[in-house]
Amino acid sequence: MSWTISSKSLAAESLLLEESIYSLANGYLGVRGNFEEGYQQSYDSIRGTYINAFYEQVEIPYGEKLFGFPSTQQKIVNMIDSQTIEILFGEDEERFSVFDGEVLSYERKLHLDKGYSERIIHWKSPKGREVKIHFTRLVSFENRELFSINLKVEPITYFGQVKIVSVVDGNVTNYVNDHDPRVGSSHARLLHTIDSTIEKGYAMVVNGTTNSKLKTACVTSYHYESEGKIKDEIKEAAVVTSIDFTLSQPITVEKRNIYVDTVRHGNEFIQSAIDIQNQLKGVTFQELLLEQEKYVQNFWAHADIQIYGDEKVQEGIRFNLYHLHQAAGRDSFSNISAKGLSGEGYEGHYFWDTEIYMLPVFIMTKPEIARQLLLFRYSLLEHARNRAKEMGHTKGALFPWRTISGGECSSYFPAGTAQYHISADIAYSFIQYYLATNDEQFFMKYAAEVLFETARLWMDTGHFTGEYFKIDAVTGPDEYTAVVNNNYYTNLMAKYNLEWAVKAFEKLQKELPEQKEVLVNKIGLEKTEALFWRNAANRMYLPYDEERKINAQDDSFLQKDIWDFENTPKENYPLLLHYHPLTLYRYQVCKQADTVLAHFLIEDGTDEETIKNSYHYYENITTHDSSLSSCIFSIMGAKIGDIQKAYEYFIETARLDLDNTHGNTKDGLHMANMGGTWLAIVFGFAGLRIKESGLFLNPELPNAWDGYECSLQYHGRSIKLKVEKSVTSIEVKGNRLDVYIYGKRYELVENRPVLIETQRFIGEIRQ
Amino acid sequence: MSWTISSKSLAAESLLLEESIYSLANGYLGVRGNFEEGYQQSYDSIRGTYINAFYEQVEIPYGEKLFGFPSTQQKIVNMIDSQTIEILFGEDEERFSVFDGEVLSYERKLHLDKGYSERIIHWKSPKGREVKIHFTRLVSFENRELFSINLKVEPITYFGQVKIVSVVDGNVTNYVNDHDPRVGSSHARLLHTIDSTIEKGYAMVVNGTTNSKLKTACVTSYHYESEGKIKDEIKEAAVVTSIDFTLSQPITVEKRNIYVDTVRHGNEFIQSAIDIQNQLKGVTFQELLLEQEKYVQNFWAHADIQIYGDEKVQEGIRFNLYHLHQAAGRDSFSNISAKGLSGEGYEGHYFWDTEIYMLPVFIMTKPEIARQLLLFRYSLLEHARNRAKEMGHTKGALFPWRTISGGECSSYFPAGTAQYHISADIAYSFIQYYLATNDEQFFMKYAAEVLFETARLWMDTGHFTGEYFKIDAVTGPDEYTAVVNNNYYTNLMAKYNLEWAVKAFEKLQKELPEQKEVLVNKIGLEKTEALFWRNAANRMYLPYDEERKINAQDDSFLQKDIWDFENTPKENYPLLLHYHPLTLYRYQVCKQADTVLAHFLIEDGTDEETIKNSYHYYENITTHDSSLSSCIFSIMGAKIGDIQKAYEYFIETARLDLDNTHGNTKDGLHMANMGGTWLAIVFGFAGLRIKESGLFLNPELPNAWDGYECSLQYHGRSIKLKVEKSVTSIEVKGNRLDVYIYGKRYELVENRPVLIETQRFIGEIRQ
Repeated sequence: MSWTISSKSLAAESLLLEESIYSLANGYLGVRGNFEEGYQQSYDSIRGTYINAFYEQVEIPYGEKLFGFPSTQQKIVNMIDSQTIEILFGEDEERFSVFDGEVLSYERKLHLDKGYSERIIHWKSPKGREVKIHFTRLVSFENRELFSINLKVEPITYFGQVKIVSVVDGNVTNYVNDHDPRVGSSHARLLHTIDSTIEKGYAMVVNGTTNSKLKTACVTSYHYESEGKIKDEIKEAAVVTSIDFTLSQPITVEKRNIYVDTVRHGNEFIQSAIDIQNQLKGVTFQELLLEQEKYVQNFWAHADIQIYGDEKVQEGIRFNLYHLHQAAGRDSFSNISAKGLSGEGYEGHYFWDTEIYMLPVFIMTKPEIARQLLLFRYSLLEHARNRAKEMGHTKGALFPWRTISGGECSSYFPAGTAQYHISADIAYSFIQYYLATNDEQFFMKYAAEVLFETARLWMDTGHFTGEYFKIDAVTGPDEYTAVVNNNYYTNLMAKYNLEWAVKAFEKLQKELPEQKEVLVNKIGLEKTEALFWRNAANRMYLPYDEERKINAQDDSFLQKDIWDFENTPKENYPLLLHYHPLTLYRYQVCKQADTVLAHFLIEDGTDEETIKNSYHYYENITTHDSSLSSCIFSIMGAKIGDIQKAYEYFIETARLDLDNTHGNTKDGLHMANMGGTWLAIVFGFAGLRIKESGLFLNPELPNAWDGYECSLQYHGRSIKLKVEKSVTSIEVKGNRLDVYIYGKRYELVENRPVLIETQRFIGEIRQ
Repeated sequence: MSWTISSKSLAAESLLLEESIYSLANGYLGVRGNFEEGYQQSYDSIRGTYINAFYEQVEIPYGEKLFGFPSTQQKIVNMIDSQTIEILFGEDEERFSVFDGEVLSYERKLHLDKGYSERIIHWKSPKGREVKIHFTRLVSFENRELFSINLKVEPITYFGQVKIVSVVDGNVTNYVNDHDPRVGSSHARLLHTIDSTIEKGYAMVVNGTTNSKLKTACVTSYHYESEGKIKDEIKEAAVVTSIDFTLSQPITVEKRNIYVDTVRHGNEFIQSAIDIQNQLKGVTFQELLLEQEKYVQNFWAHADIQIYGDEKVQEGIRFNLYHLHQAAGRDSFSNISAKGLSGEGYEGHYFWDTEIYMLPVFIMTKPEIARQLLLFRYSLLEHARNRAKEMGHTKGALFPWRTISGGECSSYFPAGTAQYHISADIAYSFIQYYLATNDEQFFMKYAAEVLFETARLWMDTGHFTGEYFKIDAVTGPDEYTAVVNNNYYTNLMAKYNLEWAVKAFEKLQKELPEQKEVLVNKIGLEKTEALFWRNAANRMYLPYDEERKINAQDDSFLQKDIWDFENTPKENYPLLLHYHPLTLYRYQVCKQADTVLAHFLIEDGTDEETIKNSYHYYENITTHDSSLSSCIFSIMGAKIGDIQKAYEYFIETARLDLDNTHGNTKDGLHMANMGGTWLAIVFGFAGLRIKESGLFLNPELPNAWDGYECSLQYHGRSIKLKVEKSVTSIEVKGNRLDVYIYGKRYELVENRPVLIETQRFIGEIRQ
């Protein structure tokens, strides 16, 4: 049950939402869950197909453009549409639509364990023709270019002529909404059609962008066994293929679409598509399904989390993990965009969310994907160096706040470029990857350079004053406060960044002095730089409020008035859609975890008492208007021993998209939150921390559950953790390993699970 | 000599500059100094005619549009062009151009004492035709709709056919420059032509805007005495009139253009133009010139400043005052835009500059113009109330940072809407007007309401905390620092605003209780509000730095690093064109006077020692990248007794446009700086302050001068002040008056000048 997401609704708002929910993707190609046959005219729909990192470059307009404001941005492109299949019955060509006639039964499903979706309709047409129609869809993990739709039409009372009309359509536009800053505005038409033709028996549409000069093609084949009469019609920007059957037995047609682009397939992209079609010729749809299932099963073997005693949550977690896995780019051109490949929200951009909310999932379950995602960031280093220069720095790398291929795409810098912490976040994730995998080679080759260049950014951004090193004029994660001095999160992350830059420097010097020399020459590192890094890290100013005994979010945050929550009507949330940023900046009000997030990422940065006080203080003034917030409050709720609160926040994250609690799932799924669900369980309830000194766990169990189970990859081993009411068991596959549970060291040896009494909190007392 | 600006240059860059320098205007209509016959193709030119407050509404584009960002803005419109007159000689129609043939002599002049410009060219054509050509131009102060060009062609060696081809052209566009934030970007075509025709013998073009739905017409007549053959040709968007003469004697043609709009002339605007043409029929150009001179003489009688012993400065001052007078709107629809009517820079918007830099000139010389300008601001009160609501305030009025008809036109809020101080600046100017004029009726009827509504804004923006009232998240005048807490300037001005709101309230209650009731009901004033105002004013927090003994620009300013001036190359100024705002925000670096300006406007806000220390401190970190800066540093240089420094800053202001020291005079004249020149003399060298307790003077004399003389209007009197090396004389016209000179009270009685020994500073010691 919890492996299948299903729905029976045909209401307009559900279907729009389900376009995201039932979207299919493989990290390269993504297709929203649109109806092949279309909707009623009055239904709103975002019909979308995307290729990760396939973008158009568009101008960013400004009323007043100041120096350093990016003049162009990249934007994910809605690709050639191959979803459309119409079914026409009889000579009168009575058209199949669930919005006409009578739907005798209807269900759509997304099989999380098998990796495909389907839609089964028992339908009686207005003229009384009764049939069963069954669509099955697949975006292949093994053949990343492949999106296939299998259609089965089964006669019930109707026997006779049936025409399948299938379109490969190059006439596509992006979705725009001028009134929601979270969705793209203007620039709807990003692709133009270069060619539509029949090539070597395949329907083919070739599209291109104007500015980024990228091209893409969709090459489509049709596979059916019943006797059918096929006819292609080449239109200006589309190929329309109709196949006539006589319905006496069930008929089946597979529409197999191969999407290629010049980013991955070069100038020979069209030939690549044809080659792939040819290679797949002998493979049946059933075989594709089996191959898909096998791949997905392997994923679950590493990544599944089992919850005992809560079906709804179990469903939510698996749904989230499945989509996160669908979203992750696996090549050197792509990352994970804020909405994955499920929609156009945030214009297909990559943010810090990848590193802080999503990457840990891959680090701990599929480190090879994490590695690839980090390599993508590494590939942006030159862009980041240039951006740092443009931002007035003499040295260092400033990663773009939002980007596809490396250029800064943020046009509102106070909640964009000013979030310098992204550079520390990226550095942090390189460190985390290293700590979890012990991948020395990667650390020396890639992480070190990232650490050095980001450390340099901090040196040039901050300044020594009195006994401290301070960082002015940056924005922390909380976007309801902008451009402040000494944001605790930023300073703490920068400190960690600097410390690790020193470590990397010393490690290189000691272990690979030649490689160090190469790097030193490459980036012109001076001898004294590492000394300054250490000095700045040691003297880093971390604002602390003596009165409240908390870390202050920044120098001035606590001096402001507290937002008047009492007199803020419910419909005014999220606040960003109802108040000018200046109004928000004037008050103590947080969109999301900021200081509390810092306490999670670097919990040794301060003492437990301060962490607890901060949690309570900031909780009172945080709106969680960002979907990045609840999971952190869940994790830290667990950390401070308030397991009930942790659970409540967790529930917010577990079904955010499934239940559309943020109201904008139609624009795409909230990938960071999806990662956050996993984080809330593994870092929250299970209390995982990866430190230099080892792997730490602190398992707790929410009252609502009977238990849970998860898998972790660590230093080449697989670890299974099972937490139940009385007993927690942990076992390792691979070499022996020391882990710390509830602060106590245990030795794990293969086939010898360690059993420990599960500690539980009642109130704030651990029992 | 110093009454005439003249030039003999025909170089491209000079001519572009002179388009602004030789622009003519009357507060309603403005015409740039373009050549009637045009330029060489390679010459850059901004051919412009403007009507004050005649605007188009255009969309403001955003990459990311957040709540409360204005979606449209107003933009001054380049109007129908009536400047074009071509002169063709002979049957071969040899065209007059100073860029062909031989210029035997050339001069252009702007007569500051007479109010017109002229251009005299002794020219020999490539084919050897020698003539003298004399253009005289007038934008009439008495007939605001009138722009007249008088052309005289005098035969020298050439006698024969001459054709005058004159155009009234509706095919006009605005100037755009995407790379300079100080000039408008995009939206070039703002006007379309509705009609071009001959109406009752007049050439007429009617144009209109699309969104603001304003219309304008130019109705043109031609006047000449020689025998000429006139022919009109009606084109799609223009009327071309040619007049053929036979040149034996000098011939003269006057092109008389009447500009009307629907803003002032309503739907009958065309008829209005015809009526004005008809009324002026019997008036000769010479009579128009005389009428103009009379008007201008009256202006100078009140406003002239005489400098003894410095011709260059004398010229600069008169030039500045003359243009300022040309720029000032005199009706209820208009104000003074940042560039007056001399160019399109800053898109014709009105800023705080009017109140702080220009209005004082009018208050003290032409209070009736000041009154009109303030009435214009009063008329925006409803807009300001609405904007305050939009910005999340429950009460009060927030004036737009830049506007034409009241809507906020600023799209970059950190250096726009966030400059809340504009509301206090406007309140301040109402108070200053009252203190200088004693116009009780105006105070009760208009100032009180403005004071109440702006006071309310401060109450809702700031908050009581501990013993203080603090104001967070605003931007002060210095735009290199944005969105800070407790900007000294803002807090001090708000305090003054609040204090005066209380005074106004008590005064109304005491003197006009009925009017008070009307107002209380109109704006829903509660009984306790004035008490809160007083309380907030008393407890207003004014940041002070104990160590440096200065007022801190804001809470965090002094904690930042000081900008690395030493390593900033000269060509990187103005910094805003070479550094991202975030880079600037990170450092102690000022674009302009901020705290120092506060010390000028409300010098009783702190002690003399602090004022002096602040001056020295901020001077070191101020770039004067804004043209609003030097005059204030001049005034305050005089205040602290450094007359040499005051003089050096003054020199920066005196000829800023004449010498194009900011490099962008082509986009229009710097009106605020022009006012600032006057301020630097009157408030600076003469030490004028208008306080509740009276009129204060503190005359000083720069070493470079022999003396200076100025006139002031005060409480219905005219005051003449003459400062010479040894003696300062002051006399009054009107009732007796007490004034304070060098801190000592003197009684002024008509016809009995008071003579005082001029005090002079040597070093910092007054002698």
